[in-house]
Amino acid sequence: MEKLEQRILKEGELRPGGILKVDGFLNHRIDPQLSYEMAMELKRIYEGCEINKVLTIEASGIAMGVMAAFVFSCPLVFAKKSKTKNIADDVWSVEVESFTHGNTNTVIVSKQYLGPEDKILIVDDFLATGAALKGLKALVEQAGGTVVGAGIAIEKVFQGGGDALRQAGMRVESLARIASMTDDSIEFAR
Amino acid sequence: MEKLEQRILKEGELRPGGILKVDGFLNHRIDPQLSYEMAMELKRIYEGCEINKVLTIEASGIAMGVMAAFVFSCPLVFAKKSKTKNIADDVWSVEVESFTHGNTNTVIVSKQYLGPEDKILIVDDFLATGAALKGLKALVEQAGGTVVGAGIAIEKVFQGGGDALRQAGMRVESLARIASMTDDSIEFAR
Repeated sequence: MEKLEQRILKEGELRPGGILKVDGFLNHRIDPQLSYEMAMELKRIYEGCEINKVLTIEASGIAMGVMAAFVFSCPLVFAKKSKTKNIADDVWSVEVESFTHGNTNTVIVSKQYLGPEDKILIVDDFLATGAALKGLKALVEQAGGTVVGAGIAIEKVFQGGGDALRQAGMRVESLARIASMTDDSIEFAR
Repeated sequence: MEKLEQRILKEGELRPGGILKVDGFLNHRIDPQLSYEMAMELKRIYEGCEINKVLTIEASGIAMGVMAAFVFSCPLVFAKKSKTKNIADDVWSVEVESFTHGNTNTVIVSKQYLGPEDKILIVDDFLATGAALKGLKALVEQAGGTVVGAGIAIEKVFQGGGDALRQAGMRVESLARIASMTDDSIEFAR
């Protein structure tokens, strides 16, 4: 998506260790018009697919997730990061490693809001190692639901998570795909 | 707002200790159409006011916040809950007590995204003791910005936070105002 790539080039900040900060429009300050246009692009990409729920993870997936749910006319469910390992019976749960924060979170969704009737579009802001996406997919599978596909804002292709999931049969669509990054340049995959 | 009140009556779950769970449409599973209509109602209420930024707090304020920013055609900034007390120089920060979780969070916003030029609408899902709203107001004041007002989905009037802030001169508008709650009934304020 041309517009997203331009924003990344113009406003993204590169940090050592493969970190791309897009706090200016995606992760801390959010441009809602861009969130809406990304959602519309996902609607175009997944045209004709039966999707009845959008699933994301707090916190930075929620803005794009709610816009996606809005244009798909379905509910958004956001998975929560739990501080405790004492997980209640009424939730689906999975362990997810965070690349950015260097820790592990227990991620939960209430069983009430995710079940076998669900045809899910997973939405997230970033895809790098694929840990979050794999975790969300595992939650849907625990619930007996179907993952129709994923809609990601920014994929760091060079970290391999997206391609591993595609090879495992999952449909993964990313609106901006970064092939490589140095400390002062970004190259997109074509 | 009639539609929100009806959803609260139909889907809200009352728990001992003054807890109202609205996980079905506001806090965990989100109805994006309702989020949009709440945003449009805030636009009607704040018609004619100069607002150039919406501020909320992660995670459950983000969905309503991004819709509000969308209809106001301005950015959303969401304050983050920080695990660490070692706060960097480049953020505004404040301590906020959580009524629901019974703990205290350090809440931060990057100085880059909140400044003296900002005319802020604070958006949040709940207003009870007013701790979160007071904290967000303090962040705006640290930055030298102006709080135009607050737009809240559900105010628990009986907990007093909203009226205390109004008496201190803040404009606080809530879309559903709960005057009283028992373990099996809800009464709205008129």
